[in-house]
Amino acid sequence: MLRRSAKSSARTVIATNLRRLRKSKGLSQEALADLAGIHRTYVGCVERSEKNISIDSLERLARALNVEVGELVTREVE
Amino acid sequence: MLRRSAKSSARTVIATNLRRLRKSKGLSQEALADLAGIHRTYVGCVERSEKNISIDSLERLARALNVEVGELVTREVE
Repeated sequence: MLRRSAKSSARTVIATNLRRLRKSKGLSQEALADLAGIHRTYVGCVERSEKNISIDSLERLARALNVEVGELVTREVE
Repeated sequence: MLRRSAKSSARTVIATNLRRLRKSKGLSQEALADLAGIHRTYVGCVERSEKNISIDSLERLARALNVEVGELVTREVE
């Protein structure tokens, strides 16, 4: 098997990017959830890497943040 | 709501990229499924945009193809 940990690295990348992009827009987790039309607790779960988020939900978050989906799943170069 | 169609555009992008990358490696859908440790019919469903694939499954496919997850979700520039 290729899995190296219970929490995938893709989840961690998304969690980091989501928090960074959300804060850069001055949005609370609840405000972003409302914009994306998803449950208010869901954004927090994703930002803690707890959710195996689906591509449709990821796309809704990306649209609410006005970014491409690829921007959410790509690791930032330090 | 921000959804513009029943099938998200992110699904369509992934479907196109998955098929292209899989074929470029000379893999059948079944061979890729085996490599990724997912069900044999699943790859076909994703390539037809039928599945709301999760980030964990997407990461398994990316690892099996030896690409980054971002490469699967980013639209190719023509």
